[in-house]
Amino acid sequence: MTDIDTATVTPVIDGFAAQLVQQIRAQDTHGSWDRKSDMDLLAPFIVDKEARRALPIIGDPDPDTLWRLELFYGCLCLAIERQTGIMVSPMMKMSHEGFGRMVLIAGRLVVINKSLRDVHRFGFDSIAKLNAEADKFIASALEIMEKFPAVANY
Amino acid sequence: MTDIDTATVTPVIDGFAAQLVQQIRAQDTHGSWDRKSDMDLLAPFIVDKEARRALPIIGDPDPDTLWRLELFYGCLCLAIERQTGIMVSPMMKMSHEGFGRMVLIAGRLVVINKSLRDVHRFGFDSIAKLNAEADKFIASALEIMEKFPAVANY
Repeated sequence: MTDIDTATVTPVIDGFAAQLVQQIRAQDTHGSWDRKSDMDLLAPFIVDKEARRALPIIGDPDPDTLWRLELFYGCLCLAIERQTGIMVSPMMKMSHEGFGRMVLIAGRLVVINKSLRDVHRFGFDSIAKLNAEADKFIASALEIMEKFPAVANY
Repeated sequence: MTDIDTATVTPVIDGFAAQLVQQIRAQDTHGSWDRKSDMDLLAPFIVDKEARRALPIIGDPDPDTLWRLELFYGCLCLAIERQTGIMVSPMMKMSHEGFGRMVLIAGRLVVINKSLRDVHRFGFDSIAKLNAEADKFIASALEIMEKFPAVANY
């Protein structure tokens, strides 16, 4: 899966990506990933332009990709919860061929509403991009929660 | 499935149940239910106390039951839409053994939030009860939409 070269050029993992690693490790109840570096665990989330081009345009998402997608949004819920103290839970609707919808809900408020397309190609150009995307999601969730606190706290 | 005796005592189907029949027939693109009466089509939605007792306490919902559940909530969406002019869409999260959650969403507002339990026993005591339940759902959706119009129209 990895080699020394990759390990030596590994960037520092911080921000949301670090929280994602924590969540991945939290699911590893048998310790089978103990020897994997944080970068190893994040690697499948990184699908750069070249890797994306190599994937078919249309395809059914495999269970691992769906697991990563749900983990990403579940981790967003936790991050929003941590900042607001309000419980946030995800709901996903997935049709065939990787089209669907993901919503994160706080009280009666949909704090994130995301159309899913090409889920089989789910991933980010880089860890920096992953962090930037997550930060954008979190900021927009906080914004709408501040705008409609009575609905978020319903 | 039915007999003359049942047919003769059939109550008038009105209210939400009538809309449900329309939706069921709308899905019958091959006309295979043309000869079925409205009452025949609604019969699987009616699970009275005795029928419910005959079902196992814990069980996985079969696809037909899930189809009826989704049809019921989909039909609620349409009814709320008709009264408000705002599009409402359902999202369901189903875990194993018939536990789950159903939300109906208008804009960024969760207008109905329903925990699902014992989905394998989904059904109503009678058509009157089905109508009463549906009317209660619709009234509570309209209430929250009136309370938070900016969120429903987001």
